[in-house]
Amino acid sequence: MSMSDTPVHDQVSGRADTLSMSVDSGKRKTIVMKFGGTSVGTIERIRIVAQRVKAEHAQGRRVAVVVSAMAGVTNQMVGYCAELDPLADPKEYDAVVASGEQVTSGLVAIALQALGVPARSFQGWQIPLVTDDAHGKASIDGVDGTELLKCLDNGIVPVIAGFQGVGPDNRIATLGRGGSDTSAVAIAAAIHADQCDIYTDVDGIYTTDPRIVKRARKLDRITYEEMLELASVGAKVLQTRSVGLAMREGVRVRVLSSFSETDDDSGSIVVDEDEIVEKELVAGIASSHDEAKLSVRGIPDRPGIAAAIFGPLAAANINVDMIVQNTGVDRMTNMTFTVGKSDEAAARAVLEKAHGIIQYGELETSHNVVKISVVGVGMRSNAGLAATMFGTLAERGINVQVISTSEIKISVLIDSEYKELAMRALHTAYGLDKKEEPST
Amino acid sequence: MSMSDTPVHDQVSGRADTLSMSVDSGKRKTIVMKFGGTSVGTIERIRIVAQRVKAEHAQGRRVAVVVSAMAGVTNQMVGYCAELDPLADPKEYDAVVASGEQVTSGLVAIALQALGVPARSFQGWQIPLVTDDAHGKASIDGVDGTELLKCLDNGIVPVIAGFQGVGPDNRIATLGRGGSDTSAVAIAAAIHADQCDIYTDVDGIYTTDPRIVKRARKLDRITYEEMLELASVGAKVLQTRSVGLAMREGVRVRVLSSFSETDDDSGSIVVDEDEIVEKELVAGIASSHDEAKLSVRGIPDRPGIAAAIFGPLAAANINVDMIVQNTGVDRMTNMTFTVGKSDEAAARAVLEKAHGIIQYGELETSHNVVKISVVGVGMRSNAGLAATMFGTLAERGINVQVISTSEIKISVLIDSEYKELAMRALHTAYGLDKKEEPST
Repeated sequence: MSMSDTPVHDQVSGRADTLSMSVDSGKRKTIVMKFGGTSVGTIERIRIVAQRVKAEHAQGRRVAVVVSAMAGVTNQMVGYCAELDPLADPKEYDAVVASGEQVTSGLVAIALQALGVPARSFQGWQIPLVTDDAHGKASIDGVDGTELLKCLDNGIVPVIAGFQGVGPDNRIATLGRGGSDTSAVAIAAAIHADQCDIYTDVDGIYTTDPRIVKRARKLDRITYEEMLELASVGAKVLQTRSVGLAMREGVRVRVLSSFSETDDDSGSIVVDEDEIVEKELVAGIASSHDEAKLSVRGIPDRPGIAAAIFGPLAAANINVDMIVQNTGVDRMTNMTFTVGKSDEAAARAVLEKAHGIIQYGELETSHNVVKISVVGVGMRSNAGLAATMFGTLAERGINVQVISTSEIKISVLIDSEYKELAMRALHTAYGLDKKEEPST
Repeated sequence: MSMSDTPVHDQVSGRADTLSMSVDSGKRKTIVMKFGGTSVGTIERIRIVAQRVKAEHAQGRRVAVVVSAMAGVTNQMVGYCAELDPLADPKEYDAVVASGEQVTSGLVAIALQALGVPARSFQGWQIPLVTDDAHGKASIDGVDGTELLKCLDNGIVPVIAGFQGVGPDNRIATLGRGGSDTSAVAIAAAIHADQCDIYTDVDGIYTTDPRIVKRARKLDRITYEEMLELASVGAKVLQTRSVGLAMREGVRVRVLSSFSETDDDSGSIVVDEDEIVEKELVAGIASSHDEAKLSVRGIPDRPGIAAAIFGPLAAANINVDMIVQNTGVDRMTNMTFTVGKSDEAAARAVLEKAHGIIQYGELETSHNVVKISVVGVGMRSNAGLAATMFGTLAERGINVQVISTSEIKISVLIDSEYKELAMRALHTAYGLDKKEEPST
């Protein structure tokens, strides 16, 4: 029953430490530039990416590049595998799907060379970037920075195929969808990069989704903890695992647009709390539709009820997120909680099987819910922030069904039809609205 | 000035010998099945390939599969590289282009598993199949059969990405266009296969091109030497290098169709001369348009003329194929010879530069020529076979411009407009016509 889906395996070996210490890279900034699928979606866009890299290289920076597959290619490969066998062997799936990043790495290296920038491609097995054997959704066990640092020391730009590594079985392993962000952070840690720039199709991290709240504001800085919570509760800009890894390894991650002009101050940067001078109480508001609400009603109230319900769910590897228990006057209790939508059917089956033990009256499921989360390091010291949330929602007549909190987050489950209203109201209430526009 | 373009580097290590000796594979036949790009061009065709492999596997055979990229994919990748840089770094070109075979190997493994056949893919670096560092057209330096034999011993079908290996620099290297045939033969040698079956879009090796000579006959058997000569003078069915490697390693190569029903006697087999009981004097007739004719006229006749002409050409790495020298009555001599069309401009430049030394009158070039070659082991013992060629061509009024011979081959250069006439006449004269139809 974990509160977040962040795996804890990803780690980076210190094998490269000795080498990096011995070279004089003290004055030159080392950066990782990561480009997603849309940024390298065509040959023309690959040329633009190469120009961006050249511009950094020309400033005397040591640059390593991490790339995704050209947009659409991964889906095509996944489609091929599924057409042959919807339950295709993950090891073969990985060999097929990882080819997309292999192609991009070679093409970007060619594009850089054509601009006069020395470059070479690296596949996961060539680095090596070693993963565990969970093919299709592997975690990084270690990255050997030696070969990459040799390139950087010689003025060569390594262009690394993201999303892939090599497992203990000497076979290609992929990190799961969006894994290129995690690759980039792991590479940045292994080469002791000063910064990991994630080029994407938005120009930074916002206080909330600008498509829902027009007054959403781009954040210049956000802490790892806040970004991690926001990513885990619905913000899509960075993969949760990549943020967790960046936090553990102390990698400064910057998110910026690959489709507009940028400079050293562009985008949003994810850093340690110590680096942020003027801390805001609340960093952002996220929403998630990935929850299903289950209510187990009419349970005879007795000790051990929670264990009787959540024990079997944990045994079935089902993550339970938010929980609320209401005890009625008639000595009957109701337990309401959320699970991931993809786990709903399995959760129902587990509970129906356990009916004899729990002896509940009825089991209800609802999809008609949305989880709204407010995240900010200010919550640690300011108890009034929770009250602001409940007060704001109550004023709008929005009923809170379930509540969960962590050190720097409050999440509420509400009826999904109130989603936009709740987000806009909370955005204003927490003082997150853009200054330029009136916050009425 | 070699007579053929067969490289001599490809070799197969015996590293797997000890292992293969220790297992009891005495009674079970081991075969390699190689499928070209059109045979795996769609998901549906990949399913058909898997069914063919399953049929062999079900007979209790130990089967290894070698695959090309899906038809069209390699050209797409080559196009991407060329669009970025027509002179793309061969190492990056290799990383990009080799992805095609990687995808097919994984997909064929999935298709086999879906049919209940245990299978796993192998990339060149996983075997490893080690090449030299001539990226883009690498030769095989050695194949370690250990991992492949482990699979076979466990009833698993290894599905190997053809066309690719790993260079001494730990980078992906490709073997040049058509290199998957060579991969298949090298794999067959490494796992001591009884036979290497090359599935393609024709149903065997013919006495000549059936599109030109309707009475062309499929050969049940042909010797390595004959196939090697035929491949080097224009027969396209097998890559020259693959035949040379098969000959040196003693791999029986069978060519058969992947688009029709086949059995153990289908197609044509390339074997050692000793295995052919009823030898035919002539195996086949091939034609090639890849030659350019150069004539250096009006050279003062003196010793050392040949060295003065061919020395600089050799120094410029230009292969000269056929040579004829005519000395006139006026103490002037003419030298006529052929080079590959792609070398023509370079050859002209070399000769123009050497004009002061050679002191020739004029330099003429012609593309309007075709090389017709008759190949057969019978030539070793039967001098009359050459006479048949010249007599047949003379009867038709076809002028022979240049002649070259090897132990088992006679090639003549003629005006290209006589190509079909010459081929049909020679086919009949050497008794190669199909029996069923009248040979008038």
